[in-house]
Amino acid sequence: MALAAATAFEAPKLGLTAGAVVVDHGLQDGSDKTAETAAEQCRGLGLEPVVVRAVVVGSEGGPEGAARAARYEALRDVADELGADVVLLAHTRDDQAETVLLGLARGSGARSLAGMAPTAGLLRRPLLEVPRSATAAACIASGLRPWHDPHNDDSQYRRVRVRHEVLPVLEEALGPGVTEALARTAGLLRADADALDALAADLAETAVQHAEGEVLCEVSVLEEEPTALRTRVLRQAALEAGCRANDLTAGHIAAVDALVTDWRGQRWIDLPQAVKAARKGGFLILAKGMTG
Amino acid sequence: MALAAATAFEAPKLGLTAGAVVVDHGLQDGSDKTAETAAEQCRGLGLEPVVVRAVVVGSEGGPEGAARAARYEALRDVADELGADVVLLAHTRDDQAETVLLGLARGSGARSLAGMAPTAGLLRRPLLEVPRSATAAACIASGLRPWHDPHNDDSQYRRVRVRHEVLPVLEEALGPGVTEALARTAGLLRADADALDALAADLAETAVQHAEGEVLCEVSVLEEEPTALRTRVLRQAALEAGCRANDLTAGHIAAVDALVTDWRGQRWIDLPQAVKAARKGGFLILAKGMTG
Repeated sequence: MALAAATAFEAPKLGLTAGAVVVDHGLQDGSDKTAETAAEQCRGLGLEPVVVRAVVVGSEGGPEGAARAARYEALRDVADELGADVVLLAHTRDDQAETVLLGLARGSGARSLAGMAPTAGLLRRPLLEVPRSATAAACIASGLRPWHDPHNDDSQYRRVRVRHEVLPVLEEALGPGVTEALARTAGLLRADADALDALAADLAETAVQHAEGEVLCEVSVLEEEPTALRTRVLRQAALEAGCRANDLTAGHIAAVDALVTDWRGQRWIDLPQAVKAARKGGFLILAKGMTG
Repeated sequence: MALAAATAFEAPKLGLTAGAVVVDHGLQDGSDKTAETAAEQCRGLGLEPVVVRAVVVGSEGGPEGAARAARYEALRDVADELGADVVLLAHTRDDQAETVLLGLARGSGARSLAGMAPTAGLLRRPLLEVPRSATAAACIASGLRPWHDPHNDDSQYRRVRVRHEVLPVLEEALGPGVTEALARTAGLLRADADALDALAADLAETAVQHAEGEVLCEVSVLEEEPTALRTRVLRQAALEAGCRANDLTAGHIAAVDALVTDWRGQRWIDLPQAVKAARKGGFLILAKGMTG
């Protein structure tokens, strides 16, 4: 609501049209009425058009992941239908800190700690450095009464546990700057991951070839490169050979990397989705159904 | 004690001499007797020589930092006196996870989340992927009774709060794999930071010059580079101009970076230790006592 109010206030001064999308996830009794109330509030702020979009939440990726997927699809669809230039999302610095902590549990490196992007396609997150307390205060100051989703207090959700249990204990132990530090960490690691991914893509241009369902990586090129680039190229090669991202662990990549950096004639490495990685002469070969 | 026992068992089989250093920090009454007991235990394991070294803990860097500095200095000194090839340290995966969480609170990017190095100079940390529970079990299995330092339960120390308050809550909220994920994160981010630091050093070779107390950065070279490299080069330039590392924040560097990437004729940027950064023509100039 704070973002809606700020946008309704600023957009006309810039000669821009600003509307709103209210997504009804259909997960609670009366959610259609809640959505309609929010839409009325948006219209009252002067936003136009205001679209209520009911979505069907599936089950893939867990309850939070499925709801998120449905929500973003609805936002993209409405933006597309209306020809919107950008979609503003109201994630705050606190949301970003929570996302970093949730990423920590995955342990899959810089990208999983990089949090949410300030800019991604049509999406913009202008409040990503603003504390949640400021958006709450803005609503009070504007006389707006936002809907408090009871799911936001339901500790079956990991994000709710991070918000209400982990972050307060972290602040108690490490000091009140933790939320800000986590959000700042996200920005720094996002820049790192972007740079390393781009450099790894450049490296793959010279080090990786594709032939008849096989992905071939040239050992003499890779072995000169730093671990951070080598492992990113090898991970991408494994994905291209048919591994699914969610099944591919840092342990798998380390084992493949040892074929490059610690070659002692070891046998092939078994990867997810029946992909194998083996060293033959000056190449690593990654493919499905390879016969050793 | 678990590392001492394992080393005493393995070293002779490899034809190596293994001794031990017991550091008496002198921070508790009777610490000299505690140190002597530990030394006797090491001798009983067959380690030789066993050296007890009393140190004087200063105050710089807080109580934990000062004790650490004194301890590492003693280890280096004894290694030097004995002509040791390596010094083994017994930090476990749990210690590494705690170090990552302590680094999170600093919010200064990959390096502060990279934890402790498995290898640094003479130092080796062979237990960095081993859980603390395994070292405790090894002591019990060997009939060893390690000294339990009461400071390890004193919640005035940040690390103790992380160990006893933060990690249990994180595991409760995110699942029992959190400690392992944090340690794995440290390894991945260490590789990232090493690669980016090396690339930034290469970039500085062409982009940065030094003249009469001034550090000059060539804008046309820097502006083509990714944020992660540009900001590392600028941070290093600020250090060379006289800023102290602990006083230099990500916010300072972002402001200097804006002189490169978002140049609108803004005035100089004030940095710690009276260093200023200003854009003049095609250069950023960083120096102490510059007159704007």
